[in-house]
Amino acid sequence: MIVVMKPGASKQQIEHVAERVRQMKLTPHLIVGTERTVVAIVGDERPVSREMLESIPGVEKALPVLAPYKMASIETRHEPTQIPLGVDFALGGRRIGLIAGPCSVESRAQLLEVAHAVKEAGAVALRGGAFKPRTNPYSFQGLADEGLEYLAEAREATGLAVVTEVMSQEQVVLVGRYADVLQVGARNMQNYDLLRAVGRQPKPVLLKRGLAAAVDEWLLAAEYILAQGNPNVILCERGVRTFEQHTRFTLSLSVVPHLKEVTHLPVIVDPSHGTGRRELVESMSLAAVACGADGLLIEVHPDPESALLDGAQSVTPEAFARLVHKCRRVAQAVDREL
Amino acid sequence: MIVVMKPGASKQQIEHVAERVRQMKLTPHLIVGTERTVVAIVGDERPVSREMLESIPGVEKALPVLAPYKMASIETRHEPTQIPLGVDFALGGRRIGLIAGPCSVESRAQLLEVAHAVKEAGAVALRGGAFKPRTNPYSFQGLADEGLEYLAEAREATGLAVVTEVMSQEQVVLVGRYADVLQVGARNMQNYDLLRAVGRQPKPVLLKRGLAAAVDEWLLAAEYILAQGNPNVILCERGVRTFEQHTRFTLSLSVVPHLKEVTHLPVIVDPSHGTGRRELVESMSLAAVACGADGLLIEVHPDPESALLDGAQSVTPEAFARLVHKCRRVAQAVDREL
Amino acid sequence: MIVVMKPGASKQQIEHVAERVRQMKLTPHLIVGTERTVVAIVGDERPVSREMLESIPGVEKALPVLAPYKMASIETRHEPTQIPLGVDFALGGRRIGLIAGPCSVESRAQLLEVAHAVKEAGAVALRGGAFKPRTNPYSFQGLADEGLEYLAEAREATGLAVVTEVMSQEQVVLVGRYADVLQVGARNMQNYDLLRAVGRQPKPVLLKRGLAAAVDEWLLAAEYILAQGNPNVILCERGVRTFEQHTRFTLSLSVVPHLKEVTHLPVIVDPSHGTGRRELVESMSLAAVACGADGLLIEVHPDPESALLDGAQSVTPEAFARLVHKCRRVAQAVDREL
Amino acid sequence: MIVVMKPGASKQQIEHVAERVRQMKLTPHLIVGTERTVVAIVGDERPVSREMLESIPGVEKALPVLAPYKMASIETRHEPTQIPLGVDFALGGRRIGLIAGPCSVESRAQLLEVAHAVKEAGAVALRGGAFKPRTNPYSFQGLADEGLEYLAEAREATGLAVVTEVMSQEQVVLVGRYADVLQVGARNMQNYDLLRAVGRQPKPVLLKRGLAAAVDEWLLAAEYILAQGNPNVILCERGVRTFEQHTRFTLSLSVVPHLKEVTHLPVIVDPSHGTGRRELVESMSLAAVACGADGLLIEVHPDPESALLDGAQSVTPEAFARLVHKCRRVAQAVDREL
Repeated sequence: MIVVMKPGASKQQIEHVAERVRQMKLTPHLIVGTERTVVAIVGDERPVSREMLESIPGVEKALPVLAPYKMASIETRHEPTQIPLGVDFALGGRRIGLIAGPCSVESRAQLLEVAHAVKEAGAVALRGGAFKPRTNPYSFQGLADEGLEYLAEAREATGLAVVTEVMSQEQVVLVGRYADVLQVGARNMQNYDLLRAVGRQPKPVLLKRGLAAAVDEWLLAAEYILAQGNPNVILCERGVRTFEQHTRFTLSLSVVPHLKEVTHLPVIVDPSHGTGRRELVESMSLAAVACGADGLLIEVHPDPESALLDGAQSVTPEAFARLVHKCRRVAQAVDREL
Repeated sequence: MIVVMKPGASKQQIEHVAERVRQMKLTPHLIVGTERTVVAIVGDERPVSREMLESIPGVEKALPVLAPYKMASIETRHEPTQIPLGVDFALGGRRIGLIAGPCSVESRAQLLEVAHAVKEAGAVALRGGAFKPRTNPYSFQGLADEGLEYLAEAREATGLAVVTEVMSQEQVVLVGRYADVLQVGARNMQNYDLLRAVGRQPKPVLLKRGLAAAVDEWLLAAEYILAQGNPNVILCERGVRTFEQHTRFTLSLSVVPHLKEVTHLPVIVDPSHGTGRRELVESMSLAAVACGADGLLIEVHPDPESALLDGAQSVTPEAFARLVHKCRRVAQAVDREL
Repeated sequence: MIVVMKPGASKQQIEHVAERVRQMKLTPHLIVGTERTVVAIVGDERPVSREMLESIPGVEKALPVLAPYKMASIETRHEPTQIPLGVDFALGGRRIGLIAGPCSVESRAQLLEVAHAVKEAGAVALRGGAFKPRTNPYSFQGLADEGLEYLAEAREATGLAVVTEVMSQEQVVLVGRYADVLQVGARNMQNYDLLRAVGRQPKPVLLKRGLAAAVDEWLLAAEYILAQGNPNVILCERGVRTFEQHTRFTLSLSVVPHLKEVTHLPVIVDPSHGTGRRELVESMSLAAVACGADGLLIEVHPDPESALLDGAQSVTPEAFARLVHKCRRVAQAVDREL
Repeated sequence: MIVVMKPGASKQQIEHVAERVRQMKLTPHLIVGTERTVVAIVGDERPVSREMLESIPGVEKALPVLAPYKMASIETRHEPTQIPLGVDFALGGRRIGLIAGPCSVESRAQLLEVAHAVKEAGAVALRGGAFKPRTNPYSFQGLADEGLEYLAEAREATGLAVVTEVMSQEQVVLVGRYADVLQVGARNMQNYDLLRAVGRQPKPVLLKRGLAAAVDEWLLAAEYILAQGNPNVILCERGVRTFEQHTRFTLSLSVVPHLKEVTHLPVIVDPSHGTGRRELVESMSLAAVACGADGLLIEVHPDPESALLDGAQSVTPEAFARLVHKCRRVAQAVDREL
């Protein structure tokens, strides 16, 4: 941490900062500049509160030097984390993983139809929500337990791993009984009780980025899970909120190569939520594969027009098969497999 | 809802849209323009899914005409909702309510000291977190039950109402036993299980705006609570995430007069979180009062430098007393009291 | 500037950074931490390119310590700059200045009517565009020279100072002949040729904030003008672009007290463009006055419905008079005059 | 345009809206709903001001049905516009065009070295700024005329087309004498005098997206140029301003497929400015090619550390050659050439 003092900071104020640093068992290092004095803190700054430093009289600002997360950092673990998903596949390796399925589980027939279709097209996992977080209280909220049963049946029938959302701490045990991967949604990215709960169970966790979460906040959310003992966290970029109007969210693809530099966790992209528009899903899938994503999360519905939710961003099984075919070519072009 | 068809949309496609509208027991109304055909939907469009309409072939976009919330709307209830807070005071009336206290309850002594100070300065309620949502898993997480006990004791000692955060569904009963108002934090604004849980209990709910929540999404979150039978929801603007760097968040004060136009619920402002900088709290408090806020939520700490969290945005009891004095003058200038 | 080296940076890389710093006649100061080495630069860092430092191998990031502007800084000039506007009035002092008028000059009659009305209500200056920057090429582009003549006539008739926009370098001489204050619009905030041109002439400049300009970028734009010898720059907050939908732009009022801390230049607020909605103009004017603005820039039109542009955000002369009356009361409550 | 009336709008108010529509030689179409009355306007709504409609008493909001641009629209011209660039190459066709070179022309030697290197690697055009828009008035501002001479010399030596920025109306003739393509920078995207000036000369124009420009505003800026008679406009996505901190701007790649749906103009991507970080340029180039970009604009510098500006985002000629090689493979995978 670098503490920048205000222009007229007194000797006492500077010494007081140094004293506080020493109380934290760290070493202050004074640099008297022409216009400002700066106190550099030597030692592990992570437990030091930037806000505390900034509330000391005479301090202008405190600039962190280190990233605030530790277990999620590539400096802690240099090898990419590979996460087993279903049979014969690990996410985070050379092969790109496709996770596909309907936004919500609507019926047994719908789910099985999609499951067989995406399996045939090349998916390794089936997504589908049994519990749905809905902005509007009057909207369809999911089939709940019944949906979980259908997901388990679809896994039996196809061999696909099952990825489904868990919306609260209490659902963790129930959902964990059915799912292979527990998804934490964007709106729950900072639901810390939920993060701790999925961190204490053994299944991998797919952690969606919050709508307005900075990358460091996202990795700190992952750190909550890792710190409870679960090493298997999949990061999923799903678009952030900006002023853009041509899409529902702005898919921020540069996080993919950025994350590859700072963390060992696998990174996937959800172009369905990330754009909110079916016509853009294929292009954004190709872009995600080209820039290094380890997987894609795509909404597929046999009859998007009749989908109970998110129809506008779901592709048909036929469109999905074409998308997979094209992604495979791009994957090869960047020395990956799919 | 207005459904805009694509330029070359076929007669069949247009008829298909009309058919779908009729299936929903609504009336389609065709307008054939020079470049586009438009299908206007007559009837209550709220249960109609915009996404569903946008996934019908030939449809370019669907434009909602009505706001998606109903119980929160001023069209449903024309009188402002007034919410009793402690003794002799109702939030949402002519008198502006000050809710003040430390970010987190740190000790019995700290809390009582602040409680007496803010009471004397003119506050009607005491805020203080017993459970704290923290971005960083290695940070202080709150005193939990012990903190709740201290809050109750401070109420006894001062007569202030107690406002404290509830972070998950399971905490609702416990927190409800101690608090007069249950706060739902920004990061939980779309934690729907929590919203439903606070909607099923009798205490008023202070609902903070999410970091990237559109106003309609915020009112839909309030609708979740209202729909469970709890009519007492206080909306709290606490800053949104934008590109600005001079503050932690951007306090979007224009929501105050906007909300007064669209909802009957009281609106308060949190300039402490909304700026993240103690030096700006007083000015933003004055601005909030001037533009019609029904109350303020302010962090006060006897020794901000030693605060376990959010020291940089806490004001001292002395600074708070000055702030109240100034706000009182502005309140009178806009024909309110404080 | 603080240069943070990457974890494994070699001795040679660190020495190379130090060498580059010495070449710039500054002093490097090495701090060897537990996880990172940091090179602090002692001396005036302003001419040092952060980007250059960040492109040296082994460097992780460079953190500036000083603000990048100098003449605009309160450290350079401690007294507030007061800018004479018309007769007997200086912007930036105790008295708050009202600048009001139509978005664009539409006709002689319209302008004179508004001028008399706003004068009577208490305005010190008349705004009105002769040249209009329009997003849409098919929209009305202003009366040009004819509009300038009408503005001059209105000044004669009322004694109001004239504020009007200059859109390009070539217009500076012409507009300077008629106007008392030259306005640089938000879309031109980084039109550097224009900034230099208005910096080389003697009339005060009203510099609107760019739609997505950080505060430092805005102050650097002011610095362009100051550096050419013109000391009279008025900063005008007019809303920034964010995800918000209830207003056209987001009025970021916390910049008012923030600017008061970092610059000596006067700060005014434009609630008309800043919200885009007439119903919100009064509330946001009151808020601006309450938080310390030195003036307001408000669109007034006798018949907003017939305004050639920006009718939705213009208030009538009657509404303006009411607004002034209310602002005056709030001004007194914060020990200002109006 | 769809005009939504307020809940209690009177018959007179509704009739008044209809009357205004008729005055504009358009046809009003009333739809009386259960909660609102809606007036649909039949005819070409483009000249109709949404703001004017929204300032009529009783009107809640006006929703445009048509895109505001016309000549830029794919409905006006169904074939993609192909723009000849140098010898044997047209941008907007099957072959992807690489435009590369230093941020600014620093010296004859530097420019020639880069020109030969990028030519060899496969570029079709050379970029390089002779005039530089700089946020900071104390920064290097470009070599001006001398820089243009070097660019012309580099064209002679290599056969590359020359792309360079024009910053103001007065520079258009001068720059047009040397350049093959005139670039309008992001900060000038709404400098309407400049847009008109480049629209009246014959060379193609590369129009960068403004930092906070909505897609419609960007296309309206293109329309300004097209409306003056110049049909050759290249759209260049270069990142927008959001809350993201891991990059300088947020590259919004979904605009590429979106623009392909709405306009016939070619679209290129600038991953150098779009990320501000050299390490991310290759990945984002691959993504841009994968999602359908017609070209890339990339900063290349032989010695980024010594670059007078933007060193942190420039790649070396060797890195550029590797990038081209990889992009070529991805281009083939999406049935394009490079």
